Amino acid sequence: MSRDEEERDAAQITSPSNPRIKRLVGLRNREARDRESVFVVEGARDLGRALESGHRPTEVYYDNSLFSRSPFPAPDEASVDALALDRASYRGHSQGIIAVFEQFDVNLDRLELGPAPLVLVLEAIEKPGNLGAMLRTADAVGVDAVIALGAGIDPFNPNVIRASTGTLFTVPLAVTDLEAAAIWLEQRDVRIVAADPLASTTLWEADLSGPTALLIGSEHDGLTPSARSAAGLLVSIPMHGAADSLNASVSAAILAFEALRQRSC
Amino acid sequence: MSRDEEERDAAQITSPSNPRIKRLVGLRNREARDRESVFVVEGARDLGRALESGHRPTEVYYDNSLFSRSPFPAPDEASVDALALDRASYRGHSQGIIAVFEQFDVNLDRLELGPAPLVLVLEAIEKPGNLGAMLRTADAVGVDAVIALGAGIDPFNPNVIRASTGTLFTVPLAVTDLEAAAIWLEQRDVRIVAADPLASTTLWEADLSGPTALLIGSEHDGLTPSARSAAGLLVSIPMHGAADSLNASVSAAILAFEALRQRSC
Repeated sequence: MSRDEEERDAAQITSPSNPRIKRLVGLRNREARDRESVFVVEGARDLGRALESGHRPTEVYYDNSLFSRSPFPAPDEASVDALALDRASYRGHSQGIIAVFEQFDVNLDRLELGPAPLVLVLEAIEKPGNLGAMLRTADAVGVDAVIALGAGIDPFNPNVIRASTGTLFTVPLAVTDLEAAAIWLEQRDVRIVAADPLASTTLWEADLSGPTALLIGSEHDGLTPSARSAAGLLVSIPMHGAADSLNASVSAAILAFEALRQRSC
Repeated sequence: MSRDEEERDAAQITSPSNPRIKRLVGLRNREARDRESVFVVEGARDLGRALESGHRPTEVYYDNSLFSRSPFPAPDEASVDALALDRASYRGHSQGIIAVFEQFDVNLDRLELGPAPLVLVLEAIEKPGNLGAMLRTADAVGVDAVIALGAGIDPFNPNVIRASTGTLFTVPLAVTDLEAAAIWLEQRDVRIVAADPLASTTLWEADLSGPTALLIGSEHDGLTPSARSAAGLLVSIPMHGAADSLNASVSAAILAFEALRQRSC
Protein backbone atom coordinates (compact mmCIF):
# COMPACT_ATOMS: atom_id res chain seq x y z
CA MET A 1 0.00 0.00 0.00
CA SER A 2 1.46 3.38 -0.98
CA ARG A 3 1.71 6.40 1.34
CA ASP A 4 -1.14 8.04 -0.60
CA GLU A 5 -3.44 5.13 0.02
CA GLU A 6 -2.55 5.14 3.71
CA GLU A 7 -3.50 8.79 3.95
CA ARG A 8 -6.99 8.09 2.74
CA ASP A 9 -7.34 5.83 5.76
CA ALA A 10 -6.64 8.64 8.29
CA ALA A 11 -9.69 9.23 10.45
CA GLN A 12 -11.39 12.62 10.06
CA ILE A 13 -12.50 14.33 13.24
CA THR A 14 -14.42 17.57 13.00
CA SER A 15 -16.36 17.88 16.23
CA PRO A 16 -15.10 18.65 19.75
CA SER A 17 -17.70 16.17 20.99
CA ASN A 18 -16.32 13.32 18.88
CA PRO A 19 -15.86 10.24 21.12
CA ARG A 20 -12.14 10.08 20.35
CA ILE A 21 -11.71 13.69 21.48
CA LYS A 22 -13.65 12.87 24.64
CA ARG A 23 -11.34 9.93 25.28
CA LEU A 24 -8.27 12.21 24.94
CA VAL A 25 -9.87 14.62 27.42
CA GLY A 26 -10.46 11.65 29.73
CA LEU A 27 -6.77 10.73 29.58
CA ARG A 28 -5.99 13.86 31.61
CA ASN A 29 -7.04 11.68 34.50
CA ARG A 30 -4.35 9.39 35.89
CA GLU A 31 -6.68 6.46 36.46
CA ALA A 32 -7.82 6.56 32.85
CA ARG A 33 -4.20 6.71 31.64
CA ASP A 34 -3.16 3.81 33.84
CA ARG A 35 -6.18 1.72 32.84
CA GLU A 36 -5.14 1.95 29.18
CA SER A 37 -1.41 2.09 30.09
CA VAL A 38 -0.92 5.09 27.79
CA PHE A 39 -0.02 8.75 28.05
CA VAL A 40 -0.42 11.85 25.94
CA VAL A 41 2.20 14.16 24.48
CA GLU A 42 1.38 17.56 22.97
CA GLY A 43 3.41 19.65 20.57
CA ALA A 44 6.20 19.00 18.08
CA ARG A 45 9.08 19.72 20.48
CA ASP A 46 8.22 17.04 23.04
CA LEU A 47 7.03 14.62 20.38
CA GLY A 48 10.23 15.16 18.41
CA ARG A 49 12.31 14.36 21.49
CA ALA A 50 10.31 11.17 21.98
CA LEU A 51 11.04 10.08 18.41
CA GLU A 52 14.74 10.98 18.67
CA SER A 53 15.03 8.72 21.68
CA GLY A 54 13.37 5.78 19.97
CA HIS A 55 9.82 6.07 21.31
CA ARG A 56 6.99 5.66 18.79
CA PRO A 57 3.43 6.94 19.26
CA THR A 58 0.54 4.59 18.72
CA GLU A 59 -1.83 7.42 17.75
CA VAL A 60 -1.26 10.87 16.24
CA TYR A 61 -3.93 13.60 16.05
CA TYR A 62 -2.92 16.52 13.84
CA ASP A 63 -4.47 19.90 13.16
CA ASN A 64 -5.56 19.72 9.51
CA SER A 65 -5.39 23.51 9.14
CA LEU A 66 -1.62 23.26 9.79
CA PHE A 67 -0.68 19.88 8.31
CA SER A 68 -1.87 18.21 5.13
CA ARG A 69 -0.85 14.86 6.57
CA SER A 70 0.45 13.54 9.87
CA PRO A 71 3.91 15.06 10.44
CA PHE A 72 4.84 11.97 12.49
CA PRO A 73 3.80 8.50 11.34
CA ALA A 74 1.72 6.28 13.63
CA PRO A 75 -0.38 3.15 13.25
CA ASP A 76 -3.42 5.29 13.96
CA GLU A 77 -3.48 8.80 12.48
CA ALA A 78 -6.38 11.24 12.64
CA SER A 79 -6.88 14.53 10.83
CA VAL A 80 -8.64 16.87 13.28
CA ASP A 81 -10.24 20.29 12.94
CA ALA A 82 -8.37 22.92 14.96
CA LEU A 83 -11.15 23.58 17.48
CA ALA A 84 -11.66 19.89 18.18
CA LEU A 85 -7.91 19.40 18.69
CA ASP A 86 -7.80 22.39 21.04
CA ARG A 87 -10.58 20.75 23.02
CA ALA A 88 -8.43 17.63 23.39
CA SER A 89 -5.42 19.66 24.60
CA TYR A 90 -5.03 19.77 28.38
CA ARG A 91 -3.97 23.40 28.11
CA GLY A 92 -6.76 24.30 25.68
CA HIS A 93 -4.33 24.94 22.83
CA SER A 94 -2.96 21.98 20.96
CA GLN A 95 0.19 23.34 19.28
CA GLY A 96 -1.01 21.40 16.23
CA ILE A 97 -0.32 17.85 17.29
CA ILE A 98 -1.27 15.43 20.03
CA ALA A 99 0.08 11.90 20.27
CA VAL A 100 -0.64 8.89 22.42
CA PHE A 101 2.20 6.62 23.61
CA GLU A 102 2.23 3.38 25.54
CA GLN A 103 3.51 3.88 29.08
CA PHE A 104 7.05 2.60 29.47
CA ASP A 105 8.66 0.66 32.27
CA VAL A 106 9.82 2.75 35.26
CA ASN A 107 11.09 -0.13 37.40
CA LEU A 108 14.48 0.09 39.08
CA ASP A 109 15.60 -2.98 37.11
CA ARG A 110 15.59 -1.04 33.86
CA LEU A 111 18.35 1.31 35.09
CA GLU A 112 21.94 0.74 34.09
CA LEU A 113 24.80 2.61 35.69
CA GLY A 114 28.12 3.54 34.09
CA PRO A 115 31.43 3.87 35.94
CA ALA A 116 31.43 6.54 38.72
CA PRO A 117 27.69 6.93 38.24
CA LEU A 118 25.76 10.05 39.18
CA VAL A 119 22.14 9.45 40.17
CA LEU A 120 19.50 11.94 41.25
CA VAL A 121 17.07 10.64 43.89
CA LEU A 122 13.97 12.76 44.48
CA GLU A 123 11.85 12.24 47.55
CA ALA A 124 8.08 12.75 47.27
CA ILE A 125 8.14 15.58 44.74
CA GLU A 126 4.72 17.19 45.09
CA LYS A 127 4.45 19.21 41.92
CA PRO A 128 4.56 17.51 38.52
CA GLY A 129 6.18 20.67 37.11
CA ASN A 130 9.06 20.31 39.58
CA LEU A 131 9.65 16.69 38.62
CA GLY A 132 9.68 17.77 34.97
CA ALA A 133 12.14 20.61 35.70
CA MET A 134 14.43 18.18 37.51
CA LEU A 135 14.34 15.76 34.59
CA ARG A 136 15.42 18.64 32.37
CA THR A 137 18.33 19.40 34.69
CA ALA A 138 19.21 15.69 34.91
CA ASP A 139 19.32 15.55 31.14
CA ALA A 140 21.60 18.61 30.95
CA VAL A 141 23.98 17.15 33.53
CA GLY A 142 23.90 13.77 31.85
CA VAL A 143 23.13 11.80 35.01
CA ASP A 144 23.00 8.03 34.78
CA ALA A 145 19.49 7.90 36.21
CA VAL A 146 16.76 9.66 38.14
CA ILE A 147 14.96 7.74 40.88
CA ALA A 148 11.70 9.29 42.05
CA LEU A 149 10.46 8.06 45.42
CA GLY A 150 6.82 7.87 46.40
CA ALA A 151 3.71 5.97 45.40
CA GLY A 152 1.99 9.17 44.27
CA ILE A 153 4.55 9.97 41.59
CA ASP A 154 3.11 9.84 38.09
CA PRO A 155 5.78 10.43 35.43
CA PHE A 156 3.10 10.40 32.73
CA ASN A 157 1.31 13.49 34.06
CA PRO A 158 1.13 16.04 31.22
CA ASN A 159 2.77 18.71 33.39
CA VAL A 160 5.78 16.44 33.98
CA ILE A 161 6.22 15.95 30.25
CA ARG A 162 5.79 19.62 29.44
CA ALA A 163 8.13 20.92 32.18
CA SER A 164 10.68 18.27 31.20
CA THR A 165 10.65 19.68 27.63
CA GLY A 166 10.41 16.05 26.53
CA THR A 167 13.44 14.84 28.52
CA LEU A 168 11.13 12.34 30.22
CA PHE A 169 11.95 10.31 27.10
CA THR A 170 15.72 10.71 27.34
CA VAL A 171 16.57 10.42 31.05
CA PRO A 172 16.52 6.89 32.54
CA LEU A 173 13.85 7.12 35.23
CA ALA A 174 12.61 4.77 37.92
CA VAL A 175 9.76 5.23 40.37
CA THR A 176 10.06 3.25 43.59
CA ASP A 177 10.26 3.65 47.38
CA LEU A 178 13.15 4.70 49.62
CA GLU A 179 13.92 1.24 50.95
CA ALA A 180 14.17 -0.36 47.52
CA ALA A 181 16.24 2.53 46.19
CA ALA A 182 18.63 2.46 49.16
CA ILE A 183 19.23 -1.30 48.80
CA TRP A 184 19.66 -1.00 45.03
CA LEU A 185 22.21 1.82 45.42
CA GLU A 186 24.10 0.07 48.22
CA GLN A 187 24.44 -3.09 46.13
CA ARG A 188 26.12 -0.96 43.48
CA ASP A 189 28.41 0.87 45.96
CA VAL A 190 26.77 4.21 45.23
CA ARG A 191 26.96 6.61 48.18
CA ILE A 192 23.82 8.56 49.00
CA VAL A 193 24.58 12.26 49.55
CA ALA A 194 21.53 14.10 50.83
CA ALA A 195 20.86 17.84 50.74
CA ASP A 196 20.20 19.13 54.24
CA PRO A 197 20.19 22.86 55.06
CA LEU A 198 21.63 22.12 58.54
CA ALA A 199 24.56 19.93 57.44
CA SER A 200 27.98 21.25 58.47
CA THR A 201 29.67 19.97 55.30
CA THR A 202 28.97 22.14 52.27
CA LEU A 203 28.49 20.67 48.82
CA TRP A 204 31.78 22.30 47.85
CA GLU A 205 33.70 20.46 50.57
CA ALA A 206 32.12 17.10 49.76
CA ASP A 207 33.71 14.75 47.25
CA LEU A 208 31.01 14.15 44.65
CA SER A 209 33.33 12.66 42.06
CA GLY A 210 32.87 9.02 43.10
CA PRO A 211 29.70 6.93 42.60
CA THR A 212 27.10 9.29 44.03
CA ALA A 213 23.34 9.46 44.44
CA LEU A 214 22.19 13.02 45.22
CA LEU A 215 19.08 12.85 47.39
CA ILE A 216 16.71 15.83 47.43
CA GLY A 217 13.80 16.15 49.87
CA SER A 218 10.32 17.29 49.01
CA GLU A 219 9.47 20.95 48.38
CA HIS A 220 7.64 21.52 51.64
CA ASP A 221 8.91 18.97 54.11
CA GLY A 222 12.53 18.45 53.09
CA LEU A 223 14.07 15.06 53.80
CA THR A 224 12.12 12.50 55.81
CA PRO A 225 13.96 11.03 58.83
CA SER A 226 14.34 7.70 57.01
CA ALA A 227 15.87 9.42 54.00
CA ARG A 228 18.30 11.24 56.28
CA SER A 229 19.36 7.93 57.87
CA ALA A 230 19.78 6.30 54.47
CA ALA A 231 22.32 8.96 53.49
CA GLY A 232 26.03 8.30 53.85
CA LEU A 233 26.71 12.04 53.90
CA LEU A 234 24.64 15.17 54.45
CA VAL A 235 25.64 18.34 52.63
CA SER A 236 24.32 21.87 52.78
CA ILE A 237 24.06 24.55 50.13
CA PRO A 238 25.36 27.70 51.87
CA MET A 239 22.75 30.46 52.02
CA HIS A 240 23.11 34.09 52.87
CA GLY A 241 19.63 35.51 52.61
CA ALA A 242 16.46 36.12 54.54
CA ALA A 243 14.62 33.11 53.15
CA ASP A 244 15.46 29.70 54.52
CA SER A 245 15.30 27.46 51.51
CA LEU A 246 15.73 27.14 47.80
CA ASN A 247 13.22 25.71 45.39
CA ALA A 248 13.73 21.92 45.32
CA SER A 249 14.51 21.89 41.61
CA VAL A 250 17.05 24.70 42.06
CA SER A 251 18.71 22.74 44.89
CA ALA A 252 18.85 19.65 42.69
CA ALA A 253 20.45 21.66 39.88
CA ILE A 254 23.08 23.24 42.13
CA LEU A 255 24.08 19.86 43.56
CA ALA A 256 24.08 18.08 40.21
CA PHE A 257 26.16 20.77 38.50
CA GLU A 258 28.64 20.81 41.40
CA ALA A 259 29.08 17.04 40.91
CA LEU A 260 29.58 17.68 37.19
CA ARG A 261 32.12 20.42 37.96
CA GLN A 262 34.12 18.11 40.20
CA ARG A 263 34.12 15.47 37.50
CA SER A 264 35.12 17.97 34.77
CA CYS A 265 37.89 19.92 36.50
CA MET B 1 -6.50 55.32 72.40
CA SER B 2 -5.97 51.76 73.65
CA ARG B 3 -5.54 48.76 71.40
CA ASP B 4 -9.07 47.62 72.34
CA GLU B 5 -10.56 50.87 71.19
CA GLU B 6 -8.59 50.69 67.96
CA GLU B 7 -10.01 47.26 67.29
CA ARG B 8 -13.52 48.56 67.46
CA ASP B 9 -12.56 50.82 64.56
CA ALA B 10 -11.66 47.93 62.23
CA ALA B 11 -13.97 47.84 59.24
CA GLN B 12 -16.27 44.81 59.01
CA ILE B 13 -16.64 43.22 55.60
CA THR B 14 -19.07 40.37 55.15
CA SER B 15 -19.97 40.30 51.47
CA PRO B 16 -17.85 39.23 48.49
CA SER B 17 -19.48 42.06 46.58
CA ASN B 18 -18.34 44.71 49.08
CA PRO B 19 -16.69 47.59 47.16
CA ARG B 20 -13.42 47.14 49.04
CA ILE B 21 -13.29 43.46 48.00
CA LYS B 22 -14.02 44.53 44.43
CA ARG B 23 -11.14 46.98 44.59
CA LEU B 24 -8.76 44.23 45.79
CA VAL B 25 -9.91 42.07 42.89
CA GLY B 26 -9.27 45.02 40.57
CA LEU B 27 -5.70 45.29 41.88
CA ARG B 28 -4.87 42.02 40.10
CA ASN B 29 -4.62 44.27 37.09
CA ARG B 30 -1.30 46.02 36.66
CA GLU B 31 -2.80 49.28 35.46
CA ALA B 32 -4.96 49.49 38.55
CA ARG B 33 -1.97 48.76 40.80
CA ASP B 34 0.18 51.37 39.08
CA ARG B 35 -2.60 53.98 39.16
CA GLU B 36 -2.78 53.69 42.97
CA SER B 37 0.96 52.89 43.25
CA VAL B 38 0.20 49.91 45.48
CA PHE B 39 0.50 46.14 45.42
CA VAL B 40 -1.05 43.21 47.23
CA VAL B 41 0.59 40.54 49.36
CA GLU B 42 -1.22 37.37 50.45
CA GLY B 43 -0.39 35.04 53.30
CA ALA B 44 1.57 35.26 56.54
CA ARG B 45 4.88 33.97 55.11
CA ASP B 46 5.30 36.70 52.50
CA LEU B 47 3.79 39.36 54.72
CA GLY B 48 6.10 38.34 57.56
CA ARG B 49 9.11 38.69 55.30
CA ALA B 50 7.93 42.17 54.30
CA LEU B 51 7.72 43.22 57.94
CA GLU B 52 11.13 41.71 58.81
CA SER B 53 12.69 43.81 56.09
CA GLY B 54 11.08 47.02 57.29
CA HIS B 55 8.14 47.32 54.92
CA ARG B 56 4.80 48.26 56.47
CA PRO B 57 1.39 47.59 54.91
CA THR B 58 -1.10 50.42 54.58
CA GLU B 59 -4.08 48.06 54.71
CA VAL B 60 -4.59 44.62 56.24
CA TYR B 61 -7.61 42.39 55.54
CA TYR B 62 -7.83 39.39 57.87
CA ASP B 63 -10.09 36.35 57.96
CA ASN B 64 -12.19 36.82 61.11
CA SER B 65 -12.78 33.08 61.40
CA LEU B 66 -9.01 32.66 61.95
CA PHE B 67 -8.00 35.86 63.73
CA SER B 68 -9.81 37.82 66.45
CA ARG B 69 -7.83 40.90 65.48
CA SER B 70 -5.40 41.88 62.76
CA PRO B 71 -2.23 39.79 63.23
CA PHE B 72 -0.21 42.61 61.66
CA PRO B 73 -0.93 46.24 62.50
CA ALA B 74 -1.83 48.70 59.75
CA PRO B 75 -3.38 52.16 59.56
CA ASP B 76 -6.37 50.54 57.89
CA GLU B 77 -7.47 47.14 59.21
CA ALA B 78 -10.55 45.23 58.11
CA SER B 79 -12.13 42.12 59.57
CA VAL B 80 -13.44 40.05 56.67
CA ASP B 81 -15.62 36.97 56.41
CA ALA B 82 -13.73 34.00 54.98
CA LEU B 83 -15.67 33.76 51.72
CA ALA B 84 -15.30 37.45 50.99
CA LEU B 85 -11.55 37.27 51.65
CA ASP B 86 -11.23 34.24 49.38
CA ARG B 87 -12.96 36.27 46.69
CA ALA B 88 -10.29 38.96 47.08
CA SER B 89 -7.46 36.43 46.78
CA TYR B 90 -5.98 36.16 43.30
CA ARG B 91 -5.67 32.41 43.77
CA GLY B 92 -9.18 32.07 45.20
CA HIS B 93 -7.86 31.09 48.64
CA SER B 94 -6.67 33.83 50.94
CA GLN B 95 -4.44 32.00 53.46
CA GLY B 96 -6.16 34.18 56.04
CA ILE B 97 -4.60 37.52 55.33
CA ILE B 98 -4.23 39.99 52.51
CA ALA B 99 -2.29 43.23 52.78
CA VAL B 100 -1.80 46.28 50.60
CA PHE B 101 1.60 47.99 50.38
CA GLU B 102 2.76 51.11 48.65
CA GLN B 103 4.95 50.32 45.66
CA PHE B 104 8.60 50.95 46.40
CA ASP B 105 11.27 52.52 44.27
CA VAL B 106 12.91 50.20 41.73
CA ASN B 107 15.23 52.75 40.15
CA LEU B 108 18.88 51.91 39.60
CA ASP B 109 19.86 54.79 41.88
CA ARG B 110 18.53 52.97 44.92
CA LEU B 111 21.10 50.17 44.54
CA GLU B 112 24.26 50.16 46.60
CA LEU B 113 27.12 47.80 45.91
CA GLY B 114 29.58 46.37 48.42
CA PRO B 115 33.20 45.43 47.67
CA ALA B 116 33.57 42.75 44.93
CA PRO B 117 29.86 42.97 44.26
CA LEU B 118 27.83 40.19 42.70
CA VAL B 119 24.84 41.36 40.66
CA LEU B 120 22.27 39.32 38.77
CA VAL B 121 21.02 40.94 35.54
CA LEU B 122 17.93 39.37 33.98
CA GLU B 123 16.99 40.15 30.41
CA ALA B 124 13.29 40.28 29.52
CA ILE B 125 12.09 37.55 31.85
CA GLU B 126 8.72 36.54 30.43
CA LYS B 127 7.16 34.69 33.31
CA PRO B 128 6.51 36.43 36.63
CA GLY B 129 7.06 33.09 38.38
CA ASN B 130 10.57 32.87 36.92
CA LEU B 131 11.44 36.37 38.12
CA GLY B 132 10.19 35.39 41.57
CA ALA B 133 12.22 32.17 41.55
CA MET B 134 15.34 34.13 40.61
CA LEU B 135 14.78 36.61 43.42
CA ARG B 136 14.61 33.64 45.80
CA THR B 137 17.93 32.34 44.45
CA ALA B 138 19.44 35.84 44.60
CA ASP B 139 18.41 36.07 48.24
CA ALA B 140 19.98 32.68 49.04
CA VAL B 141 23.25 33.65 47.35
CA GLY B 142 23.22 37.05 49.00
CA VAL B 143 23.78 39.03 45.81
CA ASP B 144 24.22 42.78 46.09
CA ALA B 145 21.40 43.45 43.66
CA VAL B 146 19.13 42.12 40.94
CA ILE B 147 18.62 44.24 37.84
CA ALA B 148 15.64 43.24 35.68
CA LEU B 149 15.72 44.58 32.13
CA GLY B 150 12.64 45.35 30.08
CA ALA B 151 9.74 47.77 30.15
CA GLY B 152 7.25 44.95 30.60
CA ILE B 153 8.71 43.79 33.92
CA ASP B 154 6.31 44.25 36.83
CA PRO B 155 7.90 43.30 40.14
CA PHE B 156 4.56 43.86 41.89
CA ASN B 157 2.79 41.08 40.00
CA PRO B 158 1.32 38.67 42.58
CA ASN B 159 3.05 35.71 40.93
CA VAL B 160 6.44 37.40 41.36
CA ILE B 161 5.80 37.91 45.06
CA ARG B 162 4.52 34.40 45.59
CA ALA B 163 7.32 32.65 43.68
CA SER B 164 9.86 34.85 45.45
CA THR B 165 8.52 33.56 48.81
CA GLY B 166 8.57 37.21 49.87
CA THR B 167 12.22 37.83 48.94
CA LEU B 168 10.99 40.65 46.69
CA PHE B 169 11.16 42.59 49.96
CA THR B 170 14.70 41.55 50.88
CA VAL B 171 16.67 41.60 47.61
CA PRO B 172 17.67 45.03 46.28
CA LEU B 173 15.94 45.18 42.89
CA ALA B 174 16.00 47.64 40.01
CA VAL B 175 14.01 47.60 36.78
CA THR B 176 15.61 49.42 33.87
CA ASP B 177 16.87 48.90 30.30
CA LEU B 178 20.07 47.31 29.05
CA GLU B 179 21.79 50.56 28.10
CA ALA B 180 21.26 52.20 31.48
CA ALA B 181 22.30 49.03 33.30
CA ALA B 182 25.46 48.61 31.20
CA ILE B 183 26.55 52.21 31.83
CA TRP B 184 25.77 51.96 35.54
CA LEU B 185 27.79 48.74 35.87
CA GLU B 186 30.69 50.06 33.81
CA GLN B 187 30.92 53.18 35.98
CA ARG B 188 31.31 50.86 38.96
CA ASP B 189 33.90 48.61 37.26
CA VAL B 190 31.58 45.63 37.37
CA ARG B 191 32.29 43.17 34.57
CA ILE B 192 29.25 41.73 32.79
CA VAL B 193 29.52 37.95 32.41
CA ALA B 194 26.75 36.60 30.21
CA ALA B 195 25.48 33.05 29.99
CA ASP B 196 25.70 31.79 26.41
CA PRO B 197 25.32 28.11 25.53
CA LEU B 198 27.84 28.50 22.68
CA ALA B 199 30.61 30.19 24.68
CA SER B 200 33.91 28.29 24.69
CA THR B 201 34.77 29.35 28.26
CA THR B 202 32.81 27.39 30.87
CA LEU B 203 31.56 29.03 34.05
CA TRP B 204 34.06 26.89 35.96
CA GLU B 205 37.01 28.31 33.99
CA ALA B 206 35.83 31.91 34.39
CA ASP B 207 36.96 34.04 37.30
CA LEU B 208 33.74 35.15 38.98
CA SER B 209 35.38 36.30 42.19
CA GLY B 210 35.85 39.94 41.14
CA PRO B 211 33.09 42.53 40.73
CA THR B 212 30.68 40.58 38.51
CA ALA B 213 27.25 41.04 36.97
CA LEU B 214 25.83 37.72 35.79
CA LEU B 215 23.60 38.34 32.77
CA ILE B 216 20.90 35.80 31.93
CA GLY B 217 18.87 35.92 28.70
CA SER B 218 15.16 35.40 28.42
CA GLU B 219 13.56 31.96 28.64
CA HIS B 220 12.72 31.62 24.96
CA ASP B 221 15.10 33.86 23.08
CA GLY B 222 18.25 33.77 25.18
CA LEU B 223 20.51 36.83 25.08
CA THR B 224 19.73 39.64 22.65
CA PRO B 225 22.62 40.69 20.37
CA SER B 226 22.99 43.97 22.31
CA ALA B 227 23.21 42.09 25.59
CA ARG B 228 25.86 39.83 24.11
CA SER B 229 27.89 42.88 23.01
CA ALA B 230 27.52 44.50 26.41
CA ALA B 231 29.14 41.48 28.05
CA GLY B 232 32.87 41.49 28.88
CA LEU B 233 32.86 37.70 28.93
CA LEU B 234 30.58 34.93 27.67
CA VAL B 235 30.44 31.70 29.62
CA SER B 236 28.65 28.43 28.99
CA ILE B 237 27.15 25.91 31.35
CA PRO B 238 28.37 22.54 30.00
CA MET B 239 25.50 20.27 29.01
CA HIS B 240 25.50 16.60 28.19
CA GLY B 241 21.90 15.81 27.33
CA ALA B 242 19.43 15.67 24.51
CA ALA B 243 17.78 18.99 25.36
CA ASP B 244 19.57 22.18 24.40
CA SER B 245 18.90 24.48 27.28
CA LEU B 246 18.19 24.83 30.96
CA ASN B 247 15.33 26.72 32.52
CA ALA B 248 16.43 30.37 32.85
CA SER B 249 16.04 30.35 36.63
CA VAL B 250 18.08 27.15 36.91
CA SER B 251 20.83 28.72 34.76
CA ALA B 252 20.81 31.79 36.99
CA ALA B 253 21.12 29.62 40.12
CA ILE B 254 24.00 27.56 38.73
CA LEU B 255 25.94 30.69 37.76
CA ALA B 256 25.24 32.53 40.99
CA PHE B 257 26.20 29.58 43.20
CA GLU B 258 29.40 29.06 41.18
CA ALA B 259 30.30 32.70 41.89
CA LEU B 260 29.53 32.09 45.56
CA ARG B 261 31.68 28.93 45.54
CA GLN B 262 34.63 30.82 44.06
CA ARG B 263 34.24 33.49 46.71
CA SER B 264 33.93 30.94 49.53
CA CYS B 265 36.74 28.50 48.69
